[in-house]
Formats: sequence, C-alpha cells, structure tokens
Amino acid sequence: MPIRRPPHPEPPFRIVRVSHVELGVRDLAAARAFYVDCLGLLVSNETADTLHLRGLEERNHHSIVLRKAREPHAAAIGFKVASEEDLDRAAFWFGRNNLPTSFPEIPHQGRTLRTADVHGLPVDFYFRMEQVERMLQRYAAHRGGRIQRIDHVNCFTPDVQASHDFYSEIGFRTTEYTETEDAGPKLWAVWMHRKGNVHDLAFTNGRGPRLHHVGMWTQSPLDILNLCDLMATSGYLPNMERGPGRHGISNAFFLYVRDPDGHRIELFASDYLTVDPDLEPIRWSLKDPQRQTLWGHPAPKSWFEEGSTFAGVPVREPALGAQPIVAR
Amino acid sequence: MPIRRPPHPEPPFRIVRVSHVELGVRDLAAARAFYVDCLGLLVSNETADTLHLRGLEERNHHSIVLRKAREPHAAAIGFKVASEEDLDRAAFWFGRNNLPTSFPEIPHQGRTLRTADVHGLPVDFYFRMEQVERMLQRYAAHRGGRIQRIDHVNCFTPDVQASHDFYSEIGFRTTEYTETEDAGPKLWAVWMHRKGNVHDLAFTNGRGPRLHHVGMWTQSPLDILNLCDLMATSGYLPNMERGPGRHGISNAFFLYVRDPDGHRIELFASDYLTVDPDLEPIRWSLKDPQRQTLWGHPAPKSWFEEGSTFAGVPVREPALGAQPIVAR
Amino acid sequence: MPIRRPPHPEPPFRIVRVSHVELGVRDLAAARAFYVDCLGLLVSNETADTLHLRGLEERNHHSIVLRKAREPHAAAIGFKVASEEDLDRAAFWFGRNNLPTSFPEIPHQGRTLRTADVHGLPVDFYFRMEQVERMLQRYAAHRGGRIQRIDHVNCFTPDVQASHDFYSEIGFRTTEYTETEDAGPKLWAVWMHRKGNVHDLAFTNGRGPRLHHVGMWTQSPLDILNLCDLMATSGYLPNMERGPGRHGISNAFFLYVRDPDGHRIELFASDYLTVDPDLEPIRWSLKDPQRQTLWGHPAPKSWFEEGSTFAGVPVREPALGAQPIVAR
Amino acid sequence: MPIRRPPHPEPPFRIVRVSHVELGVRDLAAARAFYVDCLGLLVSNETADTLHLRGLEERNHHSIVLRKAREPHAAAIGFKVASEEDLDRAAFWFGRNNLPTSFPEIPHQGRTLRTADVHGLPVDFYFRMEQVERMLQRYAAHRGGRIQRIDHVNCFTPDVQASHDFYSEIGFRTTEYTETEDAGPKLWAVWMHRKGNVHDLAFTNGRGPRLHHVGMWTQSPLDILNLCDLMATSGYLPNMERGPGRHGISNAFFLYVRDPDGHRIELFASDYLTVDPDLEPIRWSLKDPQRQTLWGHPAPKSWFEEGSTFAGVPVREPALGAQPIVAR
Repeated sequence: MPIRRPPHPEPPFRIVRVSHVELGVRDLAAARAFYVDCLGLLVSNETADTLHLRGLEERNHHSIVLRKAREPHAAAIGFKVASEEDLDRAAFWFGRNNLPTSFPEIPHQGRTLRTADVHGLPVDFYFRMEQVERMLQRYAAHRGGRIQRIDHVNCFTPDVQASHDFYSEIGFRTTEYTETEDAGPKLWAVWMHRKGNVHDLAFTNGRGPRLHHVGMWTQSPLDILNLCDLMATSGYLPNMERGPGRHGISNAFFLYVRDPDGHRIELFASDYLTVDPDLEPIRWSLKDPQRQTLWGHPAPKSWFEEGSTFAGVPVREPALGAQPIVAR
Repeated sequence: MPIRRPPHPEPPFRIVRVSHVELGVRDLAAARAFYVDCLGLLVSNETADTLHLRGLEERNHHSIVLRKAREPHAAAIGFKVASEEDLDRAAFWFGRNNLPTSFPEIPHQGRTLRTADVHGLPVDFYFRMEQVERMLQRYAAHRGGRIQRIDHVNCFTPDVQASHDFYSEIGFRTTEYTETEDAGPKLWAVWMHRKGNVHDLAFTNGRGPRLHHVGMWTQSPLDILNLCDLMATSGYLPNMERGPGRHGISNAFFLYVRDPDGHRIELFASDYLTVDPDLEPIRWSLKDPQRQTLWGHPAPKSWFEEGSTFAGVPVREPALGAQPIVAR
Repeated sequence: MPIRRPPHPEPPFRIVRVSHVELGVRDLAAARAFYVDCLGLLVSNETADTLHLRGLEERNHHSIVLRKAREPHAAAIGFKVASEEDLDRAAFWFGRNNLPTSFPEIPHQGRTLRTADVHGLPVDFYFRMEQVERMLQRYAAHRGGRIQRIDHVNCFTPDVQASHDFYSEIGFRTTEYTETEDAGPKLWAVWMHRKGNVHDLAFTNGRGPRLHHVGMWTQSPLDILNLCDLMATSGYLPNMERGPGRHGISNAFFLYVRDPDGHRIELFASDYLTVDPDLEPIRWSLKDPQRQTLWGHPAPKSWFEEGSTFAGVPVREPALGAQPIVAR
Repeated sequence: MPIRRPPHPEPPFRIVRVSHVELGVRDLAAARAFYVDCLGLLVSNETADTLHLRGLEERNHHSIVLRKAREPHAAAIGFKVASEEDLDRAAFWFGRNNLPTSFPEIPHQGRTLRTADVHGLPVDFYFRMEQVERMLQRYAAHRGGRIQRIDHVNCFTPDVQASHDFYSEIGFRTTEYTETEDAGPKLWAVWMHRKGNVHDLAFTNGRGPRLHHVGMWTQSPLDILNLCDLMATSGYLPNMERGPGRHGISNAFFLYVRDPDGHRIELFASDYLTVDPDLEPIRWSLKDPQRQTLWGHPAPKSWFEEGSTFAGVPVREPALGAQPIVAR
C-alpha cells in the first residue's frame, strides 16, 4: 500500500509557487518594528491598518501582508499560477470538487480566486500582482536578516496523508517525507514543491489546519548568525524559538523566530535543486533525531505544539498520535 | 522592432535543465588532479580514458564528463527533458527543422538524442540517467570548492539574436540581456533559463560557436574564497583567470578558473529565483562596467577572447564588432 | 572590599602566553582520528605512545600533546616565558612560595620548569620549543575546523578568588568576570590573559582543580559551522556537547566538543583586543543567561559538571554553592 | 651584514600599540558620509570642525580623528604607552635624541607628547584617553564594514632601513619584511608590531614620509565582501582602489578604499599571533607577486605611488629605485 503519490503529470491548472501569506496582528507598530527594523523586510505599502512587505529580490509587491486584527490569526496562503487561464481552470477544479470559490478584490493583485483545501485551509490563487522595484542590488537598503524572498509555508494538518493526496492532485511533488515506524508506516510530514527546490508547502501531523511557519530565504548562514546577534541584543531574545542549526531534512540552515503575535517565521538558507522529474523523495524516520537537526539539538515543545489558527477555520485533532523527539 | 522574444508558451518539447557537458582533455591524470583534488568534484566512474564527475547534491551520474583526447575540445552540451515522450517530440522537432538527429549509445544514460542548434553547436537530450548516491550530507567527502551541482553553460555565438530566437522557440526564457548602445540596439549577450534561476544557458557575441564556460554552483562566497586560497598555494595560481567578484548580471558571486587544457569553469553562488512567468528581463548596457563586475574590476582580455571549440564544428566571426570594457 | 586585583605591575617573571596542554588518552588511534582527521590539527610528531599536534599557524612544535594512558587525565598546562632568565626567576619565585619545582627533560622543548599552582594544578614553564613549518598558507593541508592555534585553557577551581589572586600575582590581567548576586558578591569565574586577547586562562567555581576545556582558535564562525556538519555526519554527533553559539562573555563564537576520552575542546573565534593597561574588566552576573550564550541557550548539565582530573592531583569541593542556569 | 635588528630587549619606554590617526579633510560632511554611513565607524564626538570616530569594540574615545582643513593631509600617528611614567621616559628619550618634544592640549586625551621620528614623521604618545561605551555587543548599531578597531598604520619612507632601525630601538619587533633581490639585498618594506599581531606600523620604500594607509580590523572576510557590495552600489565605486583579496604578507584578507580626500583605508581581517619573542620574521622577495596578493592580482599603480603627506613635513625621494610588480 503505497502512501506517497507522484504529482499529477498533467495537473488541472499550473501553480508556479507559493507567493505570500496574510497575517492578522494586534499591534501593527510592534509588528513593523519586528518585520522591518529587525528582520529587514522592505515596505511596499503602508496604510493605517495594513503593511505589505517583501524581500530584497522580490519584484512582486508583497510576500507578507500584515493586517491589524483583534486577535492574531493567519488569513490565507497565496499561490501564483502561470496565467489567467490557469486561474479559471483552478476555479473550475475547486468548484467541481465542491470547495468554495470566490473572486474578492485584493489590493495590489489582479484577479484572485479565494478557496480552501480539503481541510478548510484558506488558499488564494492569482496570476498578476503589482510589480515593484527589485532591491537586490541596492545594498544600502539591506538590513537585519537580509531576507531575499518567501520560500515556503508549513502547516499543521490533522491528516498528512489527505493533505499530501490533495496537493499531489494539483501538481505538487514530494521531495522529502517522514514516516512513523509502525508496521504499516504512516505519513507524519511531507515537503512538497512546485518551484524547484525542497518545498513551497509542507505539512506536519498535528491539530490543524494551522499555520506552523512561513519560511523566508536568506543568502547565507552568516546572515542568519548576524540576525541572531542582532535579535539577542535588541530586545528580541524571547522571540528566538529554535536554532540556528542545520536541518537534516532539506539540509538547509535555519532559525525559527516568533513575531510579537506569536506567528512563526523561519529564516532558511541553502537547500538544493529538485526540478528533475525522476528525483526520488528522501525518506526519514520519525525517530531519527538528525531529521530535525543534523547537529542533534531537539526542538522545543512549543515548536511542535504552537501554531497560528486560520481565521474562522475549525481545528481538528490529528489522526496520528505518535510523538517526535522533543527537548525536555 | 523588438529584439527579445518571450519563450514559447507551449514549447514543442519540455526541457528540464542543462545537465552535463563533455570535454576532451589531453592528460586525464592532470584533469583529475584539477577537477577532483582541487575543485572537489566527486568521481562517479573512472575508466582508462574517461572520468564521470558530479557535484555534492547531484544524484544524476555525471555533470562533467572528461574524455581523453588528442586536442582539447568541447564535445556536447547535455539537457535533461521531462519524459521519454519529450525526447521523441524533440527528435521530431529537430528533424522537421532540418537539423541532424541520431540516438547514439551513451554510457550511464538512457535513450539520448544527439543533435545541433542553428549554429551547429552540438546538443544532447535525454530523460533517464543512472542515479548515484547523494553526498550533500556526507560532509566528510566535501573538498575544495564544495561544488554542489552544475548550474549553467555559457557559449560564444556569432549571432546572439539568432541563438536567442532558437532557444526561445524551444522554451527558454530570457532573464537578463546586454544590448549595444547603437541607435538600433543589438543583442550582445543573453541569459536564458528553464530550471528557475538566472540561467541554464547564456550566449555572448564572439567567434563561435565555442564553449565559454561551464558554471558550477557552490553554496556560498566563502567556499569560493577558500578555493582561491587553495588554488593559489597548490600550484594552480596560473589557472585563476578572473575574480573572485560579484557579477552585476545575476548578482552572483563568481570565480573563473581554467583547467589544464584551458577549458573554463565558473564557480558561481547565490543568484535569484526566476520562476514567475511575468518576470521582466533585466537590461544592461554593453558600456556599463558594473554589468561584468559590480565592484568595477574589468575582466582580462583572455576572458573575452578564449573559449573551447566544439569538436568538428566550424567557427564563424561574429556579426557584431562592438567591444566591451577590457582590463588593459 | 574589592574582590578583583589588578595584575602585578612588575611581575616576578614574564609569561608570554599559554602554549600547550598534555592529555592522557586510552586509545591513541581513536584520539588521532578525532584530533587529526576530524578537527584538522596537524601532526608534528608521532610515536607509539605520543602524538604532538599543532594548529595551522603555529611554528611551535606542539600545542596539544596526547599520551597513551590507562585512564584519561590532564597532565599539565604549559606556558611560554619571555626568556631563559624568566625561567630562572620563575623557579626562584615558585620555590620561595613553597611550591614544588623540578626541571624534567621534555622532548621537543628546551629547559622546562615543572611546578604547581596554589591548588596543586600542574603547570610547566619553558622558553624554547622546537620550531616547525608554519602551514597557514599551505591551504591544501587545511582540514576540519581549520584550527589556527591554541587560544586558552579553562579550569574548575574550588576557590576562584584564590586562583585569581595567585595568577594576578604572576602578571595575569582579568578581562571579564562573573560574580554571585549575594549582598557581598563572590567571584564565580574569571578570564585572565597575558597575550592580549580575552584570555590565556580562565577559572570557574567547581570541584577542582580540574581541566574544563582547551580553547582552540579558528578563523571564523563559518569554519565552526562546517565542523558541526562534518562531526554530525561522520560519527561524532555524540561528541558535540554545546553550541554552536555566541558567548556573552568574550563575544566569541563557540562550539564545545568532547574527545573520545571525554576531554573537552572549545572551537573559538573572534573575541577582541585587550592590550590596553587601563582596560576595565567587564562584570557579569551569575544569573544573566546571556553571559553564557548571548542567544539564550543554556548549557547542558555535563558542561557545568564534567572535567578532566589532573593526574595525581586531589580534587576538592568548591567554596561556593551557587548555581548557574542549566538546561533542563 | 644583517639588515634586520631584533627589537630592543629593554626599550627606553613601553609602547602598547598604535592607537589613532588624525586626518585633515576638506569637507567634513562628505567625510562623515564615507566613514560613518558607509564604512560604519561610530561617532564619539562631533563639532563644527572635527569628528572623533571609533570601531565597535573600542572603549578608547577615538581611533580616527577627522579635522576640517583647507587641503587634505595627515596630522599625526598616535601611540598608547603603558603608563604616565612611560610618557616621561619617551619625552626624555626623544629629547636626548634631538627630536622635537612638546605637550599640547589634546581634547579627550590625557597628557600627550608630540614629537617626530627620524624622518620627521609626526608621532604622538599618551597613556590616558577618555573611555566610551563598548558597542561590540550592541549589534543594532553595526553598519557597513562593521569595523571593530584600528589595527595598524602603513607609511612610505625614503629609507626603510633607517625607519626600521629607529622603531626597533624603541621596541618594535619585525614580523615580515620584503627585500630587494640585489647581491646585497636591501630592505624594501617592513611590518613591525607591539601589540601581538602582524603589525602596528609598516614602512614601504617610496617618497616619504607619507601616510600610505590606516588599517582597520573587521571580523571576517564576509564583512569585507558585504562592504564591497555596499560601496559599489551607493556611489563609492570609484573609492574602491584594490581588492578584495588575500595578502601573501600577513595572510590577511583585505580591501583598500580611498576616502573623499584620497586618504587610504584598509579593511583587514584575520592575520596571526606574534607574541612569541623567538618568532622568526618571514622574508619575502620584492619580485614575488604572491607577496602582495596571494591570488596573484597585482596592485594598481596608484596604490604604489599615492599617499597622504603629513602637514608641514617635507617629502624626500626614496633611497632605493627598485620597482615592485604593478598592474598595467
């Protein structure tokens, strides 16, 4: 009984990559201090109740949208599709699968399809977004973690197998996965991509759907070390949750931080290329401590348990009860 | 009169990425010392007259093939396609365009189409290659420049516009380009990709077709500096041709070295993501010195003039006579 | 009641720096694999029961001496003095203070004074050592952590105040120190130097005298990260005890590893210059978690409790009972 | 006929290290933009016509003093001595050697001796300087090249042998030197230290006395690469004179930049420890291109010829006419 599916060879519509996430935050000024002054994201637009942010290489208007809210929450995960036609094909496909579809007006974006996945996780698709100046070679504007772009989004799901099947069906390819060690092993976590590196989207077993973290790409481990020094000495020490370290999975260098509302951001550097269609996914055992951190440091309990709920989306207990290794 | 074309939206066959290059070398032991002991490539297979090499993350059997030869030359540039059907479609397309097609037996590869582009540049297409162990997380095997994978191939062409048009037709997208500063500007150089970063293939105006260099991906500028120290103190000082430095084009950190037969290898780190279909290419003027090197160092004359001829392929003078800025 | 003393302005003899440490190890082949193949130290001399090792920039014959022994132990800490006359003055001073003095024959060293400090900690002084080739610019010989030189030695002492007073008397200067938070604060730890950076010698409250660790200098944090990757994937994961991280004290980047006999080695990069005679030492509170690690990670219990006994030297319980913050 | 002298074993007074340099600049605002906004030095004090600057780890009030002047010039090189008594001994020694002595009032410094060396090069000695906050662990204040401290001063001298003899007499030790390749080799350049690394002071054959450059210490080559990117894209491309690269001499990683008045600053990282009294100096041949740059890049002509004159100090032609290798 194979638990992994290959990606659909001719997916019903073409997704290019994960593109942006919208987060609800209680104090926009505090969030701005964290994301802009500390992490170093660039401001594309700022209003009384929203902040549109991007990384240094991004010409897309935004990869993180912060919106003033009464309670912290995640709003939606945004994906770019390959054309306006793909957007229509996406609407058709979601409709046919009895999932909600609408086309709300989204500032700074073209036509946008709002829908949800099999667990109710809200997802947006669009083709056009307002283009802004690329700052990659305006080095005087680089600050903090010198974040270049959004890389991926990681979510808790109550049923990893179902999430995996759903996203395989719309063209995502699995690059690495974790199995339980049962006689009939179960999928504990999957890393899936469209854009050609380890992932655009990952799912981990847990109460969900909830947002685990947004992964932001930095150029090098040194930029991540510099950010550690900066955070640790400018009042953000309690916001450093895990790392820095080297992931076994993806081989990337990482740091996990929490924003003032508890949303989790990963700084992520140097994984590998995955465009070959015949690339075999890498299997990890749930009990292998080097899966989490090649250097053996277990992650803290908060990292396994806490996440951001999606506004208005009920959370379910996970199907699997197995436990990874947790720092005491 | 637009000189750049968008990539073909529905290309006649799907190329995944540039995959490997075969080079003829006079002294296989000297080449081995250079590529393996100094640069740090891994040996996948070794016979009396061939060496198959790969980078640390590559599961494909080879990205550089060295073959003993009477005179140095480049043999062919290899591209991976998305399926066996794409291979058949490629054969059909090249045949219909009156370009030579054959299916020679290639060790360690599946069915392989051998053909040539509009200037006679030899290109191979294949879908299946023997898979080998990924060494990315076997750090004890990392040496020299800690090269992770092949990134791109750069060639001289006598007619950049024609090369650009040819590869656009089969699905390559232009990310950056250099124009002359004439009233009617001409294409001087183009960077084109399939895999989602700045390039798989680049063309520069000059006597051609000739191979300018093979670009190999490293994780960070520090690995490149370490390689400089290593080469400079282990007998390879004369092989260091240009750099280290930061390219204006691609923003990558680079070093150009010459192998014992004069073939040019680029160590290349940290460019940017280019998967968005609506990404506008970046224009550079031929007279902008920061185009070549952001830090202003002009390239040496050899870098503009020397390259590897393709075995049996006649070389033509370039159409354009304009000159870039050269170090005196 | 001042607890810190300035260094003696005209010390009785001139110590240049800490120079080497001798360690007893049970399995010389296992120790060689660890220190040479993994950490990257160079072999200056090798016999059936000893290994003399040095770092890349060291022209002195040895900075770590490994000697086959039935049980693991530390033998002595070696200091270089400024001249043969200083050696005689040292012998006179230790004799006058009723401490043992002898001049054993030590291979690869000139005349060597063997004595002990106020707690019986064995110390050697010498002026001349056999000189060997500097390998700093022989980059092809650089391996593992690319260790450049010995930097410091850190010991447990049952009475930090007494150790501090003793070494101040012979010319060591305190650069940083930790105090308890009592009404009458007590010295918990001191960092003292002769050579002009944060320390040659440090003392921490604990069962002692015992060797806590030998600190080895590396060029950059990147070399330490590379060593982490190497150790974690070549069988030395259990030997990684703490870090990598940034010390609050000294601001250095660090990694603590344990050799196969449990001796602790610190990889240490980038502290600061301390040659100014009017440099005020930096005070840290025992309760400040950033003292240990700027990024807030507490050290494991083993790091506070375990150390190498000195052969034949009785260990006493410490005077102070206060406790630092320990990782659960 | 030995041309090098050992340092005086009991020098007439104790110099601790080179401490600061005063430079005359025509446009203080332009100089501030360069030194503070671009290089990242910290401002200790600012008046209408002076700027006192320091590096991140420096507790001394200033290491670079900029003073508004009609024409660019260097004013004096400042050295810290070990005590007030050493200052008196210095005044006595310079007076006895018929060199000028005075004790002008210098803001932010204690008693200061102003004198000159054998070629009229103006030098200041002092023991006390106002102490300011150490910013090494205030990472949010780190900018540009993240310069930690002054490292050394390099001057042209018309007679390297005479300069070498003079500074040896007052306790400087030679660590590396360049000789001509004559039958009777002559000293072409010397690197001399007091503080324990490669140099506090260097002299090169040329029209002098003139200031060649002030060397500023940075933590790592990466900080220097980051500064290159920053300068190249914020209007300072013409100010980048040489590098980045690895020196053969000292093995340090370097970048030479020119301030808006043409004064030359070197960013300098990672040399080696030189405190051992029996450390043999390293000899380099004037004809060895790796002496200048391990990677073989020759320095530009300006680097060999241009320097800052000392206010009111006549310049003489050098004794030697030999020529190093210059970039065409």
